[in-house]
Formats: sequence, C-alpha cells, structure tokens
Amino acid sequence: MAKLWGGRFQKSAESWVDEFGASIGFDQQLVLEDIEGSVAHVTMLGAQNILPAEDVTKILAGLAQLKVKAEAGELEFLVANEDIHLNLEKMLIDLIGPVGGKLHTGRSRNDQVATDMHLFLKKRVPEVVGLIENFQKTIIAQAEDNIETIAPGYTHLQRAQPISFAHHLMVYFWQLERDKERFIESMKRIDILPLGAGAMAGTTFPIDRLKSAELLGFSQVYANSMDAVSDRDFIVEFLSNSALLMTHLSRFAEEIIIWSTDEFKFIELDDAFSTGSSIMPQKKNPDMAELIRGKAGRAFGNLVGLLTVLKGTPLTYNKDMQEDKEGMFDTMETVLGSLKIFEGMVRTMVVNKPRLHSAVHSDFSNATELADYLATKGMPFREAHEVTGKLVFTCIQQGIYLLDLPLTEMQKESALIEEDIYEVLAPEAAVRRRNSLGGTGFEQVANQIEIAKTHLK
Amino acid sequence: MAKLWGGRFQKSAESWVDEFGASIGFDQQLVLEDIEGSVAHVTMLGAQNILPAEDVTKILAGLAQLKVKAEAGELEFLVANEDIHLNLEKMLIDLIGPVGGKLHTGRSRNDQVATDMHLFLKKRVPEVVGLIENFQKTIIAQAEDNIETIAPGYTHLQRAQPISFAHHLMVYFWQLERDKERFIESMKRIDILPLGAGAMAGTTFPIDRLKSAELLGFSQVYANSMDAVSDRDFIVEFLSNSALLMTHLSRFAEEIIIWSTDEFKFIELDDAFSTGSSIMPQKKNPDMAELIRGKAGRAFGNLVGLLTVLKGTPLTYNKDMQEDKEGMFDTMETVLGSLKIFEGMVRTMVVNKPRLHSAVHSDFSNATELADYLATKGMPFREAHEVTGKLVFTCIQQGIYLLDLPLTEMQKESALIEEDIYEVLAPEAAVRRRNSLGGTGFEQVANQIEIAKTHLK
Amino acid sequence: MAKLWGGRFQKSAESWVDEFGASIGFDQQLVLEDIEGSVAHVTMLGAQNILPAEDVTKILAGLAQLKVKAEAGELEFLVANEDIHLNLEKMLIDLIGPVGGKLHTGRSRNDQVATDMHLFLKKRVPEVVGLIENFQKTIIAQAEDNIETIAPGYTHLQRAQPISFAHHLMVYFWQLERDKERFIESMKRIDILPLGAGAMAGTTFPIDRLKSAELLGFSQVYANSMDAVSDRDFIVEFLSNSALLMTHLSRFAEEIIIWSTDEFKFIELDDAFSTGSSIMPQKKNPDMAELIRGKAGRAFGNLVGLLTVLKGTPLTYNKDMQEDKEGMFDTMETVLGSLKIFEGMVRTMVVNKPRLHSAVHSDFSNATELADYLATKGMPFREAHEVTGKLVFTCIQQGIYLLDLPLTEMQKESALIEEDIYEVLAPEAAVRRRNSLGGTGFEQVANQIEIAKTHLK
Amino acid sequence: MAKLWGGRFQKSAESWVDEFGASIGFDQQLVLEDIEGSVAHVTMLGAQNILPAEDVTKILAGLAQLKVKAEAGELEFLVANEDIHLNLEKMLIDLIGPVGGKLHTGRSRNDQVATDMHLFLKKRVPEVVGLIENFQKTIIAQAEDNIETIAPGYTHLQRAQPISFAHHLMVYFWQLERDKERFIESMKRIDILPLGAGAMAGTTFPIDRLKSAELLGFSQVYANSMDAVSDRDFIVEFLSNSALLMTHLSRFAEEIIIWSTDEFKFIELDDAFSTGSSIMPQKKNPDMAELIRGKAGRAFGNLVGLLTVLKGTPLTYNKDMQEDKEGMFDTMETVLGSLKIFEGMVRTMVVNKPRLHSAVHSDFSNATELADYLATKGMPFREAHEVTGKLVFTCIQQGIYLLDLPLTEMQKESALIEEDIYEVLAPEAAVRRRNSLGGTGFEQVANQIEIAKTHLK
Repeated sequence: MAKLWGGRFQKSAESWVDEFGASIGFDQQLVLEDIEGSVAHVTMLGAQNILPAEDVTKILAGLAQLKVKAEAGELEFLVANEDIHLNLEKMLIDLIGPVGGKLHTGRSRNDQVATDMHLFLKKRVPEVVGLIENFQKTIIAQAEDNIETIAPGYTHLQRAQPISFAHHLMVYFWQLERDKERFIESMKRIDILPLGAGAMAGTTFPIDRLKSAELLGFSQVYANSMDAVSDRDFIVEFLSNSALLMTHLSRFAEEIIIWSTDEFKFIELDDAFSTGSSIMPQKKNPDMAELIRGKAGRAFGNLVGLLTVLKGTPLTYNKDMQEDKEGMFDTMETVLGSLKIFEGMVRTMVVNKPRLHSAVHSDFSNATELADYLATKGMPFREAHEVTGKLVFTCIQQGIYLLDLPLTEMQKESALIEEDIYEVLAPEAAVRRRNSLGGTGFEQVANQIEIAKTHLK
Repeated sequence: MAKLWGGRFQKSAESWVDEFGASIGFDQQLVLEDIEGSVAHVTMLGAQNILPAEDVTKILAGLAQLKVKAEAGELEFLVANEDIHLNLEKMLIDLIGPVGGKLHTGRSRNDQVATDMHLFLKKRVPEVVGLIENFQKTIIAQAEDNIETIAPGYTHLQRAQPISFAHHLMVYFWQLERDKERFIESMKRIDILPLGAGAMAGTTFPIDRLKSAELLGFSQVYANSMDAVSDRDFIVEFLSNSALLMTHLSRFAEEIIIWSTDEFKFIELDDAFSTGSSIMPQKKNPDMAELIRGKAGRAFGNLVGLLTVLKGTPLTYNKDMQEDKEGMFDTMETVLGSLKIFEGMVRTMVVNKPRLHSAVHSDFSNATELADYLATKGMPFREAHEVTGKLVFTCIQQGIYLLDLPLTEMQKESALIEEDIYEVLAPEAAVRRRNSLGGTGFEQVANQIEIAKTHLK
Repeated sequence: MAKLWGGRFQKSAESWVDEFGASIGFDQQLVLEDIEGSVAHVTMLGAQNILPAEDVTKILAGLAQLKVKAEAGELEFLVANEDIHLNLEKMLIDLIGPVGGKLHTGRSRNDQVATDMHLFLKKRVPEVVGLIENFQKTIIAQAEDNIETIAPGYTHLQRAQPISFAHHLMVYFWQLERDKERFIESMKRIDILPLGAGAMAGTTFPIDRLKSAELLGFSQVYANSMDAVSDRDFIVEFLSNSALLMTHLSRFAEEIIIWSTDEFKFIELDDAFSTGSSIMPQKKNPDMAELIRGKAGRAFGNLVGLLTVLKGTPLTYNKDMQEDKEGMFDTMETVLGSLKIFEGMVRTMVVNKPRLHSAVHSDFSNATELADYLATKGMPFREAHEVTGKLVFTCIQQGIYLLDLPLTEMQKESALIEEDIYEVLAPEAAVRRRNSLGGTGFEQVANQIEIAKTHLK
Repeated sequence: MAKLWGGRFQKSAESWVDEFGASIGFDQQLVLEDIEGSVAHVTMLGAQNILPAEDVTKILAGLAQLKVKAEAGELEFLVANEDIHLNLEKMLIDLIGPVGGKLHTGRSRNDQVATDMHLFLKKRVPEVVGLIENFQKTIIAQAEDNIETIAPGYTHLQRAQPISFAHHLMVYFWQLERDKERFIESMKRIDILPLGAGAMAGTTFPIDRLKSAELLGFSQVYANSMDAVSDRDFIVEFLSNSALLMTHLSRFAEEIIIWSTDEFKFIELDDAFSTGSSIMPQKKNPDMAELIRGKAGRAFGNLVGLLTVLKGTPLTYNKDMQEDKEGMFDTMETVLGSLKIFEGMVRTMVVNKPRLHSAVHSDFSNATELADYLATKGMPFREAHEVTGKLVFTCIQQGIYLLDLPLTEMQKESALIEEDIYEVLAPEAAVRRRNSLGGTGFEQVANQIEIAKTHLK
C-alpha cells in the first residue's frame, strides 16, 4: 500500500518492518481525541478562509461519520497506515474523496499527536482527582466510626503508643490530599495546546491558534512551536504523580494485608474483595490489596521508561517519543482501577474493635506514659527513659504488663512514682492526653476530621 | 558506650553493627538544621512553661556554642552516637550537664529528623529556583543575539525546516520554566512543620506547635502526627522534579555535544568549559555537557531508590526511611552543580553563524515551502507532498538542491509552480513566513522572548 | 458464576472487582504452556496410579481437543474464570464432565503458573540467542566489507584517532556476544521445574516429579517446594539481561542516527528501514533506529517494575506476583522484534566509503601519531603531548591540518621531527601501525574477525 | 595549575568548573588498583624494550613508594589533578622527575580506568561470594535446628499449610545459591583485561598485552580495543546481580520484621541486632532488617543509574562514563555490609518454638488435608474442595477448628469421612505426609539440607 509520505522513496518496507514501527495497535485509544482535534482544526481553517466553506463542510461531515463509527467500535485500523492519524485521514479520503487530504493543511502529525495526548490527560486527570476524593470520603467515613477505637500505634512494626484508629486511617487521607494537589497543579501544564506548531516551526498558513484552543477548551497555547512538539513533560509529570499515588496505595495495602492476618486480625475484608485458593479450602486472601501493592511496580516502571526514552534525545520530535503512549495508558488504567477497588475495599471492611481493644490492653505501648510522667515530675527525660526501660524489662521477665506491676516495685526504681500512675497508664487515658495539635487525642482527631472535610468539594 | 535508649537492653551491638546502622556519616549535613530546630523547640517549651526559664537559658546557650562550632567545622561526630540528633544531644549534655536531657521533652527523633529534612529543602529548593532563573536569563541573552540566525531545524536528527536559532534555544527556556513552576509548587508541601508530632502520636505536654512553626518560619503544621513522621512525599517530589530537570539538561547537553562535533560545528565551547585528552593532543572535549548528560542517571536512580524504599512499608516510622537522605543530598548537589555549570557553558559558547548560514543553504529543509506553496494554490496537501517528494528525489540524483532546479523541470511535475517559487524557497523567507503564533518567524520569536521575560523576577 | 474456590465464601465479588483481579486478559498467552504442563501432570498421575487409567485417558483426550482449539485461536476465555488455569479447567470439565476436576490432584495454581512461566522462557530465550547470533553474523559480514575502510574513531564524539570501520562495527559483535553468554547461562535457572510443589508445601500424593520433568524436557526440579512457587528470579534475570541488550542496541541506534545525518553522512539506510514525514516531503528518517533506542526505556521499566513487585514481599506466593507476566511478555516481544529489525537495518545499510575517506583526511585525528613519534624518539610522553597540542593549535589558527604543516614549522617546536613524519601522519599508516593485540591495525582486525567467527555455531 | 593535557588550550577552567568535572573525590578508592596496573604496565614496557631498564627501575621504585604511602593513607589528592590517574602521575613525576612521564607510554586514561574497575571487581566479587556462602552456612545451621519445628506456612500472608520451619528458612539458601551462581558466572566477564587498548584504537608501541594480563592475573584480554574502553557491561552485571541479591534480602528482612512483631512473635532477635527508641522505653526494633529492606532501594537506584548513563551513548569513551563509579562503590559497600549483618542477625536469632507449635494448632492450615483425604477416596478434587470449604465455614461460625468438629457433623457434608480423619488432620501428620520430592516432609527437608551442603565449599 502506498504511503502518504512516499514521494521520495523508491522502496517500501516489508510488512514486518511496518508492523514494528506502527503505533496503531495502541494509539487507536486516541481515536476520539484525534477526531476532536481534527474537527477544531478544520473549523478554524474555515474561519480563517484557509479552506473554502464547502470543503470544511464536507470534511466535518466525514469526521462526524467517523466519530459515530468510532464510538460504535466499527472502525477497522490497519497497520499499513501506521498510526491513528494516517488511519483516520485515509478513512476520511475514502469517505469523502481527495478533499479529505486538505484536512492536513497547516498541521503535522507532530503537533497532532501532542494535541491528542493533551486532550487525553485533560479529560482523565480530573477523573483521577474525582476518584481520589471519593476514596477520601470513604476514609473519613471509616475514621468517623473509629474515633474512639483505640489501637496500637506502630513504629518499626513494633507497638509504640496507643492511638485512635481513626487517626491512623486519616494518614491516608492526607497522603491522598497531597496527591490530589499535585494532579490539580499538573493540569496547568496539561491544559495548553500544541496544535498549530506544525512539524515544529509553525506554519505559513494564517492559522488562528487561539481559535483552535477555544474550540477545544484549552486555556493556553504553547509559546514556542518547537517546544510544543517535543514536550512530553506533562506525561512524565502524570507518571511521577501516579508513582507516588501508587506508593501510598502500596503502603495502605501492606497494612490491610498485615491487619488481615490470623495473627493481627484487626480487620476483616468483605468476601467481595477477597478470593479463595484452588487448593486450600480455608483460604480467604486479600488479593486486591496484594495486587495493588504489586501494581506500584508497573507505575514505577512506566515512569522510568519514559524518563529513559527522553534522556539525551535532541530536539525536536524523534520517533523514540512514540514510546510515550503505552506507559501512559497503562498507568492511567492502573490508577483509575486501583482507586476504585481500594475505595470499595475500605468501605466494606469491618474493623475488629474487640480485637483492637484487647490488643492495646496487653502490651507495653503505654511505656512512654511512664517516662513522660517522670519527666513531668522533674526527672530529666533521658533518666526517665532509662527507669522505664528497666521496669519494662522486669515485666517481660515476669510475663506481665506495666499496669500489673505493684507500686512498690515501681518505687524501687524511682520514688517519684505514686498511686496515680495507674490512671496514667490506662490506654484510653494515654490516647486522650495526647491532645497536642494534630495528636491522637480524641478531640484532636475529631477536629482533624472536620478540617479534612473542608478539603473536599 | 551506653546507648541513650538502652534501659531494656541486656547486650550492646558490636561496633561494626553499630556502624552499619548509624547515619551520622551522612546526616551530619543536617547539623545546622538540627540545631535550628532544637532552638525553636526549647524556646517554645519555655514559652509554654514546660521547662523552667533557667533550663531554657542554659540549653539555648549550649546550642549557641554548638552552632558556632558546627559552622567552624569543629564538631566531632561519633558513630557510637548513631545519628546527628543523639550526637548533638550528647554534646549538649557534655557541655551543660544533665539539664541538656530536657531538650528532648515532648519530642522524638521521628519528628525531629522530619523537621530537619523540611528545613533542608525549604532553604535549598529556592536556591534551585534561583539558579534556574539565572540560566533562563542566559538563554534569553543568547537567543537575543540569534533571532535572525537561521539554522536547520531538526526532527529525527534530520534537517526538517529552517528556523531561527533563537527559537531553538528558547525551547530550553520553556522546559526550565515548567521545572521552576513545579519546584515552586512543591514548596507548599515542604513548608509544613512536623515538629510536635512526637514519636507519632503527638505528646501529652502542652506544646504549642504553631509557635514552633512561627519561630522556624513555617506557614503550616501537619494536621496528623502520624502523617508528620511517616511522610517522605516532599522528598520524592523533589527527586521527581529534579529527575525531569536533569532530563531537560541531558537533552540540551546532547545537542551541545552534537553541535560541537567536527561534522556539525554549530557552536564552539569556551576552553574553560572543555577538557583535553591525556593521550590525544588535538582533543577538545565537551566534558561538562557529557557529564551532565550522564548525571541524569543518578537523578533517576535516586528517585527510583526512594520510591522503592517507601513501597509497601507500613505506618509509621520505619528504619528504612533512613535511606531517604543520601539520595536527596546527592540529587541536590547534582542539580545545583549542573545548573551552575550549564549556565556558564551556554553563556560562554560561541555560535558559529557562518556555518549555520551555509548549512541551511545546502539542504532540503525548504521542501515544505514547496508543498505549502502548492497547497495554497489549491492542490490537496497530500498531492502537494507527493509532487515535492519527487522533485527532491530528482535533486538528490543530480546532486543539487531545490533552488538549483530550473523552473521547467519543476513544472513537469506541476503546472501550478511559477517563477515566484524561488523567493518562496529562500531559507530566510521560509523562516520569516512561519509567522503563526509561537512559530519561528523572526517577529514571533522576538515577541516570544518578550513574553519569556515576563516570567522572570 | 460460582467460583471454583467458593466453598467458604458467602458473597461474590462484583464483576468489576473480578475484572481488576483477573489475569486472563494477558495470561492467555500461556495457553499452550498450560496445556503442555497439564498433559505431563496427568500422565504422571496415571503412571503413579494416583488416577485410574481411564480417567487419565479421558483427561488427555479433553486436553488434546483444547490444544487443537487453542492453536486455531478458537478458545473463548472468560474474566469470570480469572486466569488461564481456571479457564482451561472449566473448559475441560464442560467437555468431559466432573472427571476433569481430577486433573488438579496434587497440583495448585501456584506451581502450575510457575511451570508455565518456566516453559515460556525455556522456549523463547533460545530464540533470542538465535536472533543474536544471526545479527552477529550480519555484523561480521559488514565488518568484512570494511576492514580497510578508514574512518574517524571517536571519544567524546570528537574525532580521536583514525580506525578501521570494521573495528568499530565489531564492538557490537562483542557486546552481543556477552549478551548471548548471559542468556545462555540464565538457561540453567530457567530449565528447572516447579511442578509438584503444590500450593507451596509439596503434596501428600505419591507423585513423581522427575517423571514430570522428563516429560516436559526439564533437566532439574526445584529442591524446595516453597522456593518453587515463590521464585521469580529467572524472570528478573531475563529482564536484566534484556535491559543490557537493549542498552547495547540503543548505543548502536544512536550511532546509526548520527551517521545518517546530513552532517555525518557516513551511512545510508535502506528505504525499507526508513520512513518519511507527513508534512516534509524531503525527509527520510531513521525511524527504526530511533524507536529501538527508545525501547530501551520499556526494557528498563519492566525490570524496575518486577524488582519493585518482589521487593519486601514475604514468602511464599502473593498475588503481587501476578504482575510478573505483562512485563515479561512485553520485553520478550521488544527484544525479539528489535533484534530482527536491527539485523535487517544493518544488513541493508550502505557504508559511504568516499565520505569516510575524505573525513579522515581532513581532521586532527592523526595528532597522536605525532606525539607517539616524539615519544619513540625519547621525549617523555607528557612533553610530546604538549608539543603536539601547540602544533595543532597553530594549524587551527591557519585553517590547515597537520599534514599541511611545513617541516620547518614543526621543527620550531621540536628538532626531533624529521621528514619521515609525513608518512607517519598519513591516516592509513596510523591505522596500520596500531597493530597491538586487539588494536585497529588491519591485520589485527582481520584476525579479530576470525576469532569472532569461532564464537558462532 | 597547568593541565597535563593543556597544549592546545588557551584558557583554563575556573576551579569550580574543575571541581564539578573532577572524579578524584571518589575514584581515589581505586588508588591501589591504579598503582597495581601501572606496575604491570611499566614492567611490560621494560620487557618489551619500549622503555630502557633504568627508566623502568626508577618508575617502579617511585610506584612502590606511592603504594606504601597509599596504604598508610598519606597521599594527598588534588582536585586540580582531576582524577586518580593524573594525581598519581603527577606525584610520580614530583618524586622521580620527568622520567615519570614515560609511564603513560602506550597507555591512555581510557584503558587505565577500565583496568582499575576490572581489578576492583575482580578482587571484591569473590568477597561477595564468600559472604554469601558464609550466610548460607548459617541458614543451614538454623534449619538443622528446626527440621521438626512445625510452623504455619503462608501464601498471601494467610496461613496455608503447616510446614517445617527449616523448609521455610531453606528457601533463602536457594535464593542465595542462585545469586552466588550469577556472581561466579559474571567473573568470566570481569576477568578480562582492557589495558593496552590505548585511547581506543590500540597503540603503535610493540606492547605485549598478554604479558600485562599475566602480571595482573587476568585470564583474557579484550579482543577489540574500542570495546575495551567503552564496555561497562561488567559493572551493569554486578549491579543487576546485586539488585536481585538485595531483593532477596529485602524479602527475608520483611519476614524477620513480621516475625518479630508482638502479634507473630515467631522469633526474637538478639539485642545486639536490635535498637531502642529515644522516646519509647519499651521498644526493641528490628532496625537492621528494616535498614536492609530499605537498602534494596539504593541497589535498584544504582542499577537504573548506570543503565541510564549508558543508554544512547555513542562509542567509545564519553565523559558520562565517569558516572559508573560511585554507584558501583556504593552497591559494593551495601552488599558486603548487608550480608555480614544479615548473617549475624540470623545466627543469633532465637526461634520461638512454643509459639510456633501453638500457632499451628489453632488455625485452618490443615484444611487441605481434608480435601486431599476426600480426593484420595475418589471424590473429584473440586468437590472435595467445596465440601471442605463448607466445613471450615461451619467451624468459623462456631469459633472452633477442624479437629474440634465431631465426626457426625463432618459426615453431614460427606459420608466418605471416617474416624481416621483426626489423625490426618494433625499438623505433624500433615507435614510428615508431604513427602513428595522437595516437599516439607521431615525426611525430605533433612535430605534437602544434605543436598544443600554439597553446594558449599
């Protein structure tokens, strides 16, 4: 089949070579964006009298037909036509005759594909933001149910201090809030139109780029045509933001997995978000959480992939850049899917409050209380720490906890310890008293949730 | 040596184990930040009557002494004291006695180290922004000297269309502008104080976190104490932004290297930014550009490193997070150094205008002119493209260029071609006529530079 | 639809959750491997009298039917059946009744999927090795045509010393030779069978794993059943080896691209391996080389992806591991395709010998000759280097080359220089005289090529 | 300070530019390798009569002096002298006069630095192999103590089937065994000498590269001088092998961390490999395991870093390659340190056998026994799975385990179940009966350990 760019060529590539270079296998996902861009472009060409009205009418009619077919999934794309742009152009010409060829006036595939990518992210990044918010609301709902659920707080996966379980859950609210901020900020660099940059130098036709931008709903146009066709920063930024979002989900997933073990049993996942084993009938596996934890890998990989593609490439467009798409599509699908699943998983999970209650009453996570108690009575903190450490060790040897230790034994280590220590050591009191701003005290947590709500639409 | 946290321990680690776990080898770079944080903390403790005024006075005096020594490089850090926090605390106690131990009241190393990292980036990211602006100014200066310097524009490293060399240089202005935007936006997430989060749950002491924030110049405090100690997003964001900045520099570096070849000779680097060979006396190598191109590698690596560290770690602080520092220090040094060097290299490079002039007059980069010419006369663009392709092929076979082709030969392919084609094909005209918004036309480029200047302080 | 593992579950997942967790969308690529493994497994079960002969016969007949359909592309996979294993099992039961359920005796999906992956790589890594060898042969063929083609040799992309162009091409032979070695070595860790490990603990059935291995053509079985189901090292190793291979191709691609520029013109690619532009009729772009250079990105990304997936996951099988497949498939396709294309591109490229000849006669790449000449006459090398550097500078100022410099001028810098210097400075002589082992001297290069051939089958 | 390569330069770099380009800050780690290479080179030059014996004697004496000083840490390196090679050459000349300049005859920094890197890895990779073996021995020792220690085996971090704890530990033996194999295989590509390649083209001096190889203990020399100076594959391979090793350690570390929780309590780490908290006196944190888990990040990062550096760089040496060193040094230090620490941690950890015993007697990990029991009695496995699932669900609702379920209740689901089921369900029996090759049966595990020992020296 004759190439649309074949004038100076004496020989065609064999089909297997064509296939290797063709992007139609994946860039067909941009079919609607590509048509949308073409509609705007030809409308502008008409408005500028670059094309006569009748040609514009014919082309628009053809594009409208292609759009209907595209939405119905009825277009057949051919590897021989390389990419989505040439496939559509060929179809247009087949449909309306040679006048279809005028669509490409004042435009190149270089600015066209960049336009498609901007349109793609411009539509979908707000979807990501929406799913983040949705998930944030679910976290808030679970948190509100668990403000007074006391749980062990961990550092180094060792019990550290008792906390409100809501406080723990809310960490993920704030991680997601930062993700949301970044995605929203990135829109500034997505919402900028490359169309009109031509192959890279602009065009000699009297086009009106601001008109195209208006038609496509863009706030800005690229100030430099060579930048317009060679810029893939907005995709890297999307991949970076997604890699960090997936890191957050991987951390939350790890906790879901650990909390679901027989040994922790802090939560139970809904059957609908768990799966069984083909061989072990008792199994109920937190598959979704594991899968999302694993999917951080592909998000990192896609980021590394595109950074590598761009590294050391000269201006302006190089064919390497065709490699920008699959990773972007894949990460978008990953992010959208993971957010949806995670939201459902957290919404339906049951917090095992009795288990959390018993957990926090049989450990040493109240040791800091004792140290703080001594420090408040004037003992330098370092000494208080030492004294407490010794009392913990005494308990471990006797198989008991601090609350079980007789006052006399405590006083052997320090005479500053008095009867009121038992109130201080109670986990509820420990949580309640951590009422510093942003701390785990119940009041603080309730307050934090109220503040969090102000970040939602 | 006795550990500050040794109360419940019966056995000490051997020194080689200590050494493996110790961070003092690198976190000593945070010495000033750590002292600064302590000064604010103890001042706040005094203001809140958590510590008596006399203790505060003593501790502040001790910290002041340590700061003087730190600035003079006179502090001796010991692996046995693990990290910068315990090293300084030990020194303080040695200096002013056990009262020094009170400094740690209501604070943990977990919120302390997070504070140090925030302080570190809060100081240095604006330095990065400043160096970017400085480099942007240099690019503008070179661009202003080269608005009318016509050069070949490339896609696929093949000559595409003639352009203004200023237009080409300005691409890097816009890439850097986006980098600058991102670094500035990230400040929002750097300028937030974790201090007061304690180990992770807040504290029972009546601290005033807003006071600490005010003393340290932070606009906000973390709303959740567990988030405060486990958040490393702001560092990932710094590393992501830096990876993209270094990608830009690697692209520019690639061009500097290619332009400096014997074959291109588009520029000559200043001797001060080139080096020779130990064996080949004629060599003048663009070492700095190559090195910066290579340094994209470490920026990517540090980003991957931290993402990997965080992936799948449960809340809150885990020792893995100690691995957040070296990569951040290394990338910061890389970014600051690369920007400084690159600015000097571009400022002092000499653009070889005669060579660019001759280049653009002996190639086919004016072929699009011919196609556009035919399209303007009503030939569908696809046909115009085909006709031009054939004429190019004819020229190649005869070893001439389009301007050398007699009118009669051209007309064999299309009768639409007339005498005025020769004006159209002149490179100067080709550039001048690409006057679409953001295009390479001289007027547009001059205009673009004026717009660019409005983005500078 | 009822799950095969649903006994203890009270509630099913909604279909969108199923879809997220299902792997059938991509693991259907393993359909033949999965059937092959089942055939061996059930044959072994029969041989061990674990299943009666009649059951085995029925199951084998069913599997044979499925295989025929699979090869004809007639199987319809359902997301509701999760993965390739359960899809095939369901189809088998539908085909031959409940007896099909006996196929899973003494087997789990955990050892089954690991077996499929080993089978996949066991078949295809030798294909990779074969394509590498094929490419090596093409390199040798081009090298043999260019032993006496003198070309500039580069360091820092600056001309360094004249070389035989064959010598340059042969570097890629050796890079590929190391790739080949690594792929072959990796076979040792691919050619080891996990089947029989069960879910992870082995099985209570009296299976014969060595029999299964024999049937499937494996040399070894895993010594530890938990290792068998949790090991993905062999895939990481494939991805690492591929990342390095793609790095090599990216380096070669960069050179092809640079050599194809108007400025270098060292080679001309065949039309069949080049493409044009939709807008610029004169363009002939080295698209394939650019695309392969870019594809290094996805190879790196897939490697990072799987390393990330595995990082920090506990034993044994976790759902995260489902993420091992798409990257492996993608890298395999990338590697096979890139090797095929690159071989064709190098086979058909035309080396521009006249251009190389003229290049090497108008540069300073013979400067080392002069320095070596002086060193041979007893001048310390450092001094010789200095003297030569000054003479080069003199030439640059006069716009001439060393061969153009009168003897008297040379002698001003050193009396050691005599008439014979002109012979020494001739590029041909410079190459010929670098006859140290492995050097670029023609003899050495011819010899090197002979050695290289001994590495081919 | 005058550069050693400054002949053709009219202007020097400012010191801050020099500093950016200088590698002496890190490549001084190669000081002994560099001297070693020089000793061999000059000895060979003497043997070949390229340098007179008296010069060789002087140079060797000078090098010997430098070596003594280097070992005593008394050499002072200067940024002005760029790198380790020029620093040492300058020192040599200062020490023995201009004759020192002759050392560089027939050699370039390009082949010199490649030689240093090969020497570095040639020494240290065997150290890595030794530490791996040492660690493997410790794993075997712990395994031998725990052959009959029954523990829950996990998939998805959910209890799956009871196993021998030794079997679990031995997985890490086999992971390390594969690491060892790869490091050993890589030696083939490390043990090959680049020296004699000169700048890249070989040399005109009649050097004897095989002699140099013999003196330095290399088995082979590079067959192509351009390959010799541009090859960094052996470093990538080291970094790849290390990334996978660190992945293994991160997985083991994750388990150590999980096993050390209050909730699991399967092991207790020795105090010497744990640390405390500055604020929480009860804490005993598995810091070393966490740190090593985190260090996987830098290993991945260094690998990505070097792959990125090499991607798309043309032949031969480019300054980018200077970036090959820091990552290699860092990964080497990481790998050596992590292996040493991990070995000590595993050697001294105490396995909590009573806890493991009670764990495995209060869960459903024996459910597969029931399903297999039914399958053996002729029920298709899928049905047996279903029946067992229902019985598990019945137990969960009653808060009991399978062994607690009366026979009559079981028989309601299937009449095939008889009195002997209780023997079958006992965890000890479950383990013992998994006696398939490589399974967790005690006999198999003992046998596996014997096989493992044959892999040790």
